[in-house]
This record gives sequence, structure tokens and C-alpha cells, in this order.
Amino acid sequence: MNQDYIKADNWSIIEEGFDAESVKSSESLFSIGNGAMGQRANFEENYTGKTFQGSYIAGIYYPDKTKVGWWKNGYPKYFAKVLNAPNWIGIDIEINDEILDLNTCTEVKNFRRELNMKEGWYNRSFEATLQNGTEIGVTIRRFLCMNLDEVGIINYEITALNKDTKIVYKPYVDAGVTNEDANWEEKFWEPLDVKRTGNAAFVTAQTFKTHFKVTTFMQNSIFVNDKNGNISPSNIKTGTDKIQFSYDVIIAKGQKSSIQKIGGYTVSMNHENTVTAAETVIKEALAKGYDQLLADQIEAWSKIWEMSDITIEGDVKAQQGIRFNIFQLNQTYSGKDSRLNIGPKGFTGEKYGGSTYWDTEAYCIPFYMATKDQQVARNLLTYRYNQLDKAIENAKDNLGFTNGAALYPMVTMNGEECHNEWEITHEEIHRNGAIAFAIFNYHRFTGDYSYIPEKGLEVLIGIARFWYQRANFSTEKNQYVILGVTGPNEYENNVNNNFYTNYIAKWCIDYAHEQIQKVSLEYPSDHKSIIEKVQLSDAELQDWKKVSGNMYFPFSEKYGVYLQQDGFLDKHLVPVKDLDKSQRPINQKWSWDRVLRSPYIKQADTLQGFYFFEDHFTTEQLEKHFDFYEPFTVHESSLSPCVHSIQAAKLDKMDLAYTFYLRTSRLDLDDYNKEVEEGCHITSMAGTWMSIVEGFGGMRVKNDALHFSPKIPKEWTGYTFKINFRNQILKVEINHNETKFSLEGTQELTVFVNEDAVLVKPNL
Amino acid sequence: MNQDYIKADNWSIIEEGFDAESVKSSESLFSIGNGAMGQRANFEENYTGKTFQGSYIAGIYYPDKTKVGWWKNGYPKYFAKVLNAPNWIGIDIEINDEILDLNTCTEVKNFRRELNMKEGWYNRSFEATLQNGTEIGVTIRRFLCMNLDEVGIINYEITALNKDTKIVYKPYVDAGVTNEDANWEEKFWEPLDVKRTGNAAFVTAQTFKTHFKVTTFMQNSIFVNDKNGNISPSNIKTGTDKIQFSYDVIIAKGQKSSIQKIGGYTVSMNHENTVTAAETVIKEALAKGYDQLLADQIEAWSKIWEMSDITIEGDVKAQQGIRFNIFQLNQTYSGKDSRLNIGPKGFTGEKYGGSTYWDTEAYCIPFYMATKDQQVARNLLTYRYNQLDKAIENAKDNLGFTNGAALYPMVTMNGEECHNEWEITHEEIHRNGAIAFAIFNYHRFTGDYSYIPEKGLEVLIGIARFWYQRANFSTEKNQYVILGVTGPNEYENNVNNNFYTNYIAKWCIDYAHEQIQKVSLEYPSDHKSIIEKVQLSDAELQDWKKVSGNMYFPFSEKYGVYLQQDGFLDKHLVPVKDLDKSQRPINQKWSWDRVLRSPYIKQADTLQGFYFFEDHFTTEQLEKHFDFYEPFTVHESSLSPCVHSIQAAKLDKMDLAYTFYLRTSRLDLDDYNKEVEEGCHITSMAGTWMSIVEGFGGMRVKNDALHFSPKIPKEWTGYTFKINFRNQILKVEINHNETKFSLEGTQELTVFVNEDAVLVKPNL
Repeated sequence: MNQDYIKADNWSIIEEGFDAESVKSSESLFSIGNGAMGQRANFEENYTGKTFQGSYIAGIYYPDKTKVGWWKNGYPKYFAKVLNAPNWIGIDIEINDEILDLNTCTEVKNFRRELNMKEGWYNRSFEATLQNGTEIGVTIRRFLCMNLDEVGIINYEITALNKDTKIVYKPYVDAGVTNEDANWEEKFWEPLDVKRTGNAAFVTAQTFKTHFKVTTFMQNSIFVNDKNGNISPSNIKTGTDKIQFSYDVIIAKGQKSSIQKIGGYTVSMNHENTVTAAETVIKEALAKGYDQLLADQIEAWSKIWEMSDITIEGDVKAQQGIRFNIFQLNQTYSGKDSRLNIGPKGFTGEKYGGSTYWDTEAYCIPFYMATKDQQVARNLLTYRYNQLDKAIENAKDNLGFTNGAALYPMVTMNGEECHNEWEITHEEIHRNGAIAFAIFNYHRFTGDYSYIPEKGLEVLIGIARFWYQRANFSTEKNQYVILGVTGPNEYENNVNNNFYTNYIAKWCIDYAHEQIQKVSLEYPSDHKSIIEKVQLSDAELQDWKKVSGNMYFPFSEKYGVYLQQDGFLDKHLVPVKDLDKSQRPINQKWSWDRVLRSPYIKQADTLQGFYFFEDHFTTEQLEKHFDFYEPFTVHESSLSPCVHSIQAAKLDKMDLAYTFYLRTSRLDLDDYNKEVEEGCHITSMAGTWMSIVEGFGGMRVKNDALHFSPKIPKEWTGYTFKINFRNQILKVEINHNETKFSLEGTQELTVFVNEDAVLVKPNL
Repeated sequence: MNQDYIKADNWSIIEEGFDAESVKSSESLFSIGNGAMGQRANFEENYTGKTFQGSYIAGIYYPDKTKVGWWKNGYPKYFAKVLNAPNWIGIDIEINDEILDLNTCTEVKNFRRELNMKEGWYNRSFEATLQNGTEIGVTIRRFLCMNLDEVGIINYEITALNKDTKIVYKPYVDAGVTNEDANWEEKFWEPLDVKRTGNAAFVTAQTFKTHFKVTTFMQNSIFVNDKNGNISPSNIKTGTDKIQFSYDVIIAKGQKSSIQKIGGYTVSMNHENTVTAAETVIKEALAKGYDQLLADQIEAWSKIWEMSDITIEGDVKAQQGIRFNIFQLNQTYSGKDSRLNIGPKGFTGEKYGGSTYWDTEAYCIPFYMATKDQQVARNLLTYRYNQLDKAIENAKDNLGFTNGAALYPMVTMNGEECHNEWEITHEEIHRNGAIAFAIFNYHRFTGDYSYIPEKGLEVLIGIARFWYQRANFSTEKNQYVILGVTGPNEYENNVNNNFYTNYIAKWCIDYAHEQIQKVSLEYPSDHKSIIEKVQLSDAELQDWKKVSGNMYFPFSEKYGVYLQQDGFLDKHLVPVKDLDKSQRPINQKWSWDRVLRSPYIKQADTLQGFYFFEDHFTTEQLEKHFDFYEPFTVHESSLSPCVHSIQAAKLDKMDLAYTFYLRTSRLDLDDYNKEVEEGCHITSMAGTWMSIVEGFGGMRVKNDALHFSPKIPKEWTGYTFKINFRNQILKVEINHNETKFSLEGTQELTVFVNEDAVLVKPNL
């Protein structure tokens, strides 16, 4: 944890001073994205110090050969990789014939980065003394247009500080890039074509195997003292996968010059001819011009903040944390395109190849549901519906299930499983439950039932069939059991009767059953066609109920708690607080067998069940389970603190709730896990939002109405958030004395505060 | 299973007819070895069909980079590879200017292979018509000298069948070889030097990283019509890692010619100058000459058979099976060198890199103990003693144990762990128990207690310390438990309280404790120095006893059996006989999670405990456990049928015992598992020996005396075996009517037959 490296600020992420050791971390933290593409905060100019290069295009992946020591049947043939995309940002700079490289400059002063979250741009500035004695000032602004989402803009400005200075700008586009995590030193991009037109250049390449075709383009304009010099390249270097222009400029001491580079990607998912599309989008961008594009950017972010901002008064770090989380979520996923999903690292790193985990359903949907149009959440559900066939194939071909049982993959880019640890891939099957739960949650929040007869019911049936087959009857217990699973707590593998898994399995079957009944009554023709399509008989439904009606849940009479799994109480039950600090984090300090046989919990497991199914248990039960499990929880997953924060708030453990909140909201900014250089934890950022809205705000939806139980950490003077509840925008302001609601639109809304009905009238 | 491919024969393994599809399997089955080196039955001449090239040198390995998808702490840095050694057998042949290649000949007739186990040689003969119309007859004999164990001999004889024929013999030695299972396409051998002297050539190469230096040599003599032509090479091709001679011969129709090639390896483990050593050994071999070397070979094998042969009357396939097993065991490990051990595939394939598994202690030691001088078994024990420091390091550095706790590796070449599946490497810890048991077993059989104060006690203490630390106290059970293990049945992973593991853990602690007491009384000075060395206090001993005295064993009152592990009875308990044949073998047909949650047992697990600790249980208990577990056992490990055969025989289930016997003895010959092309299952072959001697013969050692309970399968008319019991050689002959004993030497011996004492007098 490093609390001093990022300056506290309400609206910006700021780094001051150049530290080569922080470059990779800053490249993550200052990443920018616009839902369609993303860019780590790599330098435009040459840099020979330690760096992790990353440019990403949403939906573009590569099926890398599965790397595994000991093959197990059912492993996927490939492992999807988030691909490092061709470089469009590169601008080599020569200053009086010396290459500008912050790693070799004799002095770098006033280095400063700012990620302005309010306006959606990233700035970098510094003063450098080169080895040849030239001193220059440099200011760079970069942003990825939220509206024109194939386009990014760079304005790279140089001031001659101590002498007349010859500058050569050498902007390039380059498809000769590699991944840091390439397994077999395979190449991922096959260059197809390189083209130049005037100040524009186009490199077209396609991914091997997946054949995504991408044109990476640039268009350069050179300015001297803010005037466009209409300069043409003095030199052009063309390779098979790279093109680089040279522009020569000489400025007098005190003068400045800049290059404006428009760049980005057009991809074959969206265009037949990617080069033509690139030419079109360049024209569009040039027609607007830099100032207008920047104004559009500020306007676009202003709209996003208008709906999704959370303000916190009296606690700058908490404010900065939540805004960083909201900003990153909006950079990662715009919800426009149901082919896309939310990768755990978004556009900030390669790790966790594949874009979709159960994180989407368990953690992300509530945020998008409450801060966007409901179509966004519906698109996320549709993503899974579109992959139902592959989930059925996965269960059948890889794991031997039958009769349309569906197991959604643990990790996927296109619906196929692409993770290959048996204890995760084959056993962490609770993910299937979250996908059903998200359907329930979507309906509960939006009131839009239409999704279920249209799409959801087929998904629910496939999932119910899976659980029905996956359970088996134990003659010993005279109940149904689920053996050999990994629960949400991945520090246990191949356990029997994980409470969370058994519980959600039973719930999935019952919920599917109920929805079949409901659709049969309310949408009889949909019902008929679905039942015919999936060949579901009454007898099969009766079989399901046998399992869900007689499911075993491990329970300890002594402690009055459900057990995380069979045998949990046999462990050496030393709470985390008594564990020597030198042993933490256990996943780095201990061998895997020691982790597994310890009682330590990586993230909410039994408590995840109490989070999802809160209404099924009393607050006393929740407290008992929280007090039993939290002391064994090491929170070594980014997804852990948010759920615990929500539950601690509910249980009036406000200090604990606040501690968890800080941990979840500033996980990356303060680099709790010492790994932010690999990228940011995007999906857990939605959990941060939940910590405030569901945790402190106590927001729930019950019986088609919003409920709140407002609380506030003593460290804050007040906070506000907004909820889009069924197309009514409700603003909630909470301080130590009161809770205020204000409502957009024209209709009034009844909400419940601590179970009391409050009629909110629109702000007219 | 293919029962017709190998011809039934009492003394030989015979294949008739050329089938390109069987080449790889035959290359395994007709492998030869002499304890120091081994050779798959690859053709000498060029062959462009499917083949698996394998030449092996005992003790030579390569630490290949560990290949793993998801790294876990505690994994070893490398994975040892059995190395394909440089090729010394190669002889390219040109017949009237066409390269001889059985894959391109227009006809191959009378193809026949014979592995003569009695005399220790391998023959191959065939008649071939080449594309140029030349017809030749070819007969090749090859053997690896048992006495001169750095030397192999090939006699390659060609007869001109239809015309005068020009033959070019092109023998070579070649270090430019690769492994089939190379992970990273790395090269394993670095060529150092190539040298020629007359008809001899030497290629010296060393293994990368491990720097084993090996000189691979050849010496050629060319014969025409059985007369040495003293021909010199007409051409010599020298590369950096290969040298090849050409010898030209013309023979008339009906005449024959041959090349005798002496070849092999001298290695830096045994010689300072490997080239000089090769020159010396060539001289020695030439001085003897081919006929004498062959006579020596027959004599050496005659001595081996004299002691270790088992004869079976009335059942050729059973006879052939047991001899194949005994032959391979003697080819693999001679027991001369305590630096060596017994690889699961011996010298017949690459698979299971690493030479030493718990197979050695659990399955192989009884064979070597009873058919060799006891020094051989002692060498196998010493191998582990010499690696105790590394076992302590392994437990400490990889797994976090302290205070001299030792965990022997699952797989090793030099004492370091080199297997990398957490569920095996970290959890299949029962291997530690077998190593202690072997010490007990050695003393029980040989009566040689001296090993324990000299070496064994330190090993026992390290192992006891491991178990003491590995168990933990369950407040729930008020007993000690062992969580997160894999038992001998590798179709279960990360289970709690595997009966076998808990049982052997308790036994190890108690046995170590007893031996400490015994050594303190009988070898007080050894005791003093050991206790000082390992810093063992009385308090620590008391702590051990707390664990061993209060160990938990899962037990079912309902079935009256110990449970393989906690939760076993929750499984869907369908016996193997009710499993659809299409689902077998389950490890090929099912995904790993399905295997794990099934009740199916790969090899004896609870029953392995009943095998090791037979005296601790009644025959009724054994029967109850056998009847409970065997029906769930799929025997998909080569180590499974032998133990079950022994127990079935004891329980008078003779039909079952015989079926298991055939399966263990002809596992490779009949290719039950369809994988013999990867190599033979060497370690399980010792289990085959146990099936007869301990199973049918009922041999046990109790209170320093041999006991027998002779039984005989109805398919046999009689069988015999010999036992070296404390330097007295006892021959046992069993038929349906009687058991006869005969004794070498001058001293009489009391044995027990079905608990009755029988005084056996020497055959004077």
C-alpha cells in the first residue's frame, strides 16, 4: 500500500515528480478508455526504462494455445488473451538530433500527470534537459473520444527553453506489437497492408486464428506557435507492419511547436472496409477540429457524471476513490454493444485474458442498472443469452452433461470456456448461479419482465438442468448433495457441499420453476414455444423439485451457522488477527496446500449467499454468520471488501464498513495488493459503488419500490448519489441529520426510508 | 487389449509379420536394458514410418523448465526429464544404391521379432524387396552386455536373395537427438567433440544445465560370408554432433555379409576421461569378440534366472507374463549403484520423467529383497537416506514446515521435487509413509537391523516430524485430523482424513518412536549422536505421541468399514460392474471433476493400508473392506491389480486373484491400457512378482521366519519360485496336491505352512 504516491484531489488523479519505478503503476492508473478502445498511459515518445505497453480494442482477442503442465479431460483447447493492439500513440521525438527519452535525459523537472476524470482527458507535462544540453518543456494531452469512439487525440507540445531548437516529430502506427503474457512466443497479428495518404497513414493487420481485421490509423498536423504549418512529412519509413513519418521544425528559444495526432482503430466487427472507414472517421475528426473534439469530450463526460456521480463531503480521499471507480467503469463499458462485456482489468492490462467472469453478473450489473438506461443491463443479460448454445455445448462436450444442461464458462470471450485449472474451470460452478440471479435482479430492479419470456427463461432452464444433474442423492444423508466444487472462496478447492453453491443451486431450480409457471400463465405462446424448443416435460420438472426440495446444507448447531462446506470445523480455526503479518498475503507466502487446509477465506463465500438472498435470513442470522466468517477472511480478492462493507453497514458496524469502503475504493490508487502495474481491478469498482449505495445508503428494491436505510461514516459530512429507478431519476442526499430526495421528471415516487413510506415529488 | 499380437511362448516375446501400426508398441515391448543403459527396439536402419526413438542412460536427466498454466507457490523450478540419449545403434543401409527403409520397400516378408528373455538378446529378421527390385534377407541380433555394462552389440547380417548386391553400411553415432516430450523445444545435449580412430568413432556431448558428459561410441567390423574383411571406411562424414562411416561391400546372389557394431556410452559419473574410457572398453569388447560376449550374456542371464525365475506349468501366457516382468525388472535395475533407482518406465520410454516414485518402496523393494543379495535393497534405502537433506529442504522451502520435518518428493532424480500438480506434489504426501514402511519391511525381511542406527533412524525422525506438523487438532472431533490430501487413489484430490494417509501417519510416528527407544538401548552411541544431530527432545517425542495416540480415522458403523476419506458415503455409489463400458477408462472418458466426485478408485487405497498393515486387522475385516472397495475400483493404475490379487488370494477368491494376476502380468504384453507404445510399466512388474509369491504362495515374514499359505489357480498345474531369505536360498514348488521346499547351502530352515512349522533340510 502506498498512500502518498497519488495526490488527493476531488476530481483528478495526479502524480508529481518523475520516478522511473512508478512508471508501470502510473501506466495503469492513468489509463484511458471509451468503451470501444483503451490505452495504458504509455509515453508517446521513446522510453527505454521499464514499461508495460498496452493498447486494447474491445472484443478483440486471441485464442492462445492452452498452456498446462498436466492435461485434464475437459480443458479448453485455448486460452483467450486480451490482445495488445497495434500502437497508434507513438511519436518518436528528436531534439537537436538527440532522441528524447526520459530514461536518458540528464534532468527531468516538474514532471506531472493528471487524469482529469471530470472532463475525460489525460495530461502529462515535464521539463527535460537532454544530453546535448537542450532544455525543453513538454505538455501532452490525450483523450479517447466518447462520441467518436474509434478516435483518440494527442496534442504534443514542445517549448524551446534554452536555445533555438530543431525538432523532428516522428509519429507512427505499428502492428508489430507483442503481448507481455504470450505463452509460446507466438505472434498474434498478421500484417496485411500499409498505406499512406498525405499526412495520414493506415496499417491494416488481422489477428491470427480469430481473423479480426483492424486498421490502425493516424493523421498528423504540425503547429508552430499555435499555427498549423501545413507541413508534409520530410521522410516516410514504410515496413510491412509499421509506417512512420518525419516532420522537421525549427523553433527559436521561447517558442513552441506541437503535433496533433488523430489516431485509433476501425475494426472488421463494425466495418466491411476498415481502411475506408478509417478515412471517413479521420475526415469527421478533422472537420470538428481539436478544440471542438475536446469540448465534445467534456460535454460527454459531463452527461455521464450528471447521472452517475457520487459526491462525498469532508473526505477527499474517499471522494477521489469513488470517482476513480465510476470513471473507470464508464471508460470500460458503455453498454452500447451487446457483443461486449466487462473484463476484470478493463483496458488497463492483459491479465485475466477473457472479458467475462461472473463478476459481471454478481458485481457490475447493479451499477450499470442504476446509473444507465435499463437497456445497458439488458444488453449484459443478452450477452449470456446469445452464448447459451455454447454453455450447453460446454456442459455436454467438456463435462459430460446431457439434455440441454448449461454451464456457463468461468472465463470467456465468445461463450467458449477459456480457463484451464480443473479446480476452477470444472468446479467453480457457482458462476452459473450468478447468471440466473442477474435475471432475477434485473427484473426486481427494472420491473421489466419481458426479458424473461423473450430470452431469460431458456437460460434459466439450461441452468436448472445443470444443477439438477450436478447434484446427487446421498443415501447416507438422505438428501441431495453437491460434491467436488470450488465456492466463491477460491482458497478452498474440490470441497463437498459448499453452502453458497448448494443454496444458489436450489434457488436456481426453484426460480426457474416459478418463472416457467409465470410465463405459462402470462405469456402462454412464449411458454409453448420455449417448452417445445427445450423439450421440457412435467416429469422433468417434478424431478427438479425433488432435488431443490431436499437439498442438504451443512450447519453447525454449536455455532448456529451454516458451514462454508463439509468439514470446515475440522480446521485449525485461528482468526486472521492472530496470524503473523509476515505470513500475509497468504497466497504469496504459503504453498497452495497450506492455503487450502487453512480456514482463511479469500472473499465472501457463505456471506455472498447472505448478500444475494438477504431476505431469506434474519438480521440476527446475518450477524451471526458475519461474526463467524469475517474474522477468517483475508480479503485477498478485490471482490471481497465491498460485500463486507455493505453487510457491516447493515449491522451498524460503521467503522468496519468504512475501512472496507476505503479498501475497495482505493484498492488501485493506494495499490493495496502491490500489483497495480499489471492493471486496475475494474469489476470490483462496481462493488465500490454498491458499498455506498447499498451499504451506507441501504438501498434495496422490494415489491417494486426503492427502500433506503441511510447511514453515514463519521468521517464524512455528507454524500449524494443518484438512481435511475425505472426511468425516474432520484437524487439522494444524506448527511448526519437528514436524508433528502429530489426527483427529476414530472411523476412522483414513493420510496421507503427505514421502512417508512415517503412520497417524493418531482423538482418542478 | 490385444491378445493376439504377441505370440505365447514360455521364454520369448515374439512378433510375427510386419505391421507399421505396431512399430511403436513393439519398440517398447522389445526394449533391452542392462541396468546402466537401455534401448527401445528402434530399427538400426532408416525408417520413415511412425517411430518413437529412445536410448537411455541410467541416472542421466535434464531439468526441463517447469511447464504449468497457473503457478502455485511451492512448485519446483524444474521438471526432470528422462533424456533420450545419443544414438549409438544407427546403421543406414544402401542396397544397390537404394536406402533400405521398411516403410518404402515394395514387400516385407517373414518379419519376425524375438526377445529371448532366457539369454538376454533381441533378434529381428525379415525379407524385403526394394523398389529397385533387389531382394534381401536380413537378420539382426542386438544385446546390451550385462557384465560389460557400457557396451551394446549389434550383428546386422544381409543375404542377397535374387541378385548380386552392392551393400553400403553406414553406421553412425549421433548426439543430435531430441525428446518427444520436450516442452519448450529446448535442446538437451550440447556437442563437445567428435573423434575417429580407425573403425571407431566417438561423439562427446554434455547435457545442458546438469552437465553430464557422455561419450557415445562405435566400433565396426565388416564381414563377408562370415569372414572379417578388415574393411576400412570408404567415406567418413563428420558433423558437430554426429559421425558416420560408409563401408562398401559387393556380394553375389546367395551370399551374405554382416556388420558387427560395438557401441554404447561412457559417462562422467563414472570416468574422468570418457573418451579414454570408451577406447578401453572397446578394446575389452574386441578382445572378447562377438561369440564370447554373447556367451557371457547368456551366462549372466542364466545366473539371474537361476535365482529369480518363476515357473508356471500349464499356462503359457501366465508363464510368459511373469518372465517378461522379471526380465524387465532385471533389465532396469541391477542394484549395483546406490545413485540409481527404478523409473516407472525403466528404459522403455520417456514418460513420468524422473526415476523415483513411491513405487520403489511400496512395490519394488520386496522383489529385489527376495531375489537379490540384501545389499541391493539396502542400496535402495540408502538412496533415500542420501536425499534426506533435500527432503527437509523441500518441506521447509517449498511447503513451510520447520524443525527438520522431511517430505520426500513425489518424483525425483536427485532428491529435489520435480512434479508440479499441487494435488499431487503438495498433497499426495502418503509417499512419505512408504519410505518409512520400506525401512520396517527391510528389517522384517532381512533381519539386518544395522541400517536403522546407521541411516534409517534419521529418515524416520524427519518423516515423523512431518506428520506431527501436518496433522492438526480438530476441536469439533476432539481428535487429530489430516486435511487436504490425495491418497494412493489419485481419483480423489484434496480430501480430508484419507484413512490410508492418517493410518500410515500414525504408524510412522509410532514406529519412529519405537526405533528411537530401541536404538537408545541397543546402540546408545549412535542414539546419542543422532539425537544431538537432529536436536530431538523428550518434549517433542511426547508431542508426537499426542498426535499418533489420538488420530482420527473415518469409519462407517453402517458398513463396518473405515472410509476412504470423510464424505465417501455421500457419493453416488454405483459399482463398476454397473457402469457402461463406453465410459471406461474413466480417466480418458470423463472430465476430471466427474472422476473426482465419482466413487471410483484408481488403485488400492484403503486396501493398500490393509496390505501394508495386514497384521493389524483380522481376515474378516479385510474381507469386509475388500468386498466394499473392490467393486468401486477401476484398476486404471498399473499398480492396482497386484495388491488386489494378493488380497483376493488370501480371501480364497481364487478366480478373482487369477484375473488380477493375468492383468498385472500381461498389462503391457496385452496392452490393456492402449498405451504400451509410450513404454512399459516397470514398477508394477514387481507387483506381479508379489501376486505370485505373496498372493498365491502366501509368503509372509513373521517373527524372523518365512510363512506360506500355498494356493494355486485352477488354470495351472504347478508353479515354483525361489526366495533368498537371509542368505538361504529356498525353492518353493506348489501344485494342486502338495508344496515342496528345497534349500541350498548347508543350514536347515524352519518355515511355516499354514501356520504349521516345517523343518526344511538343505539339498545336500
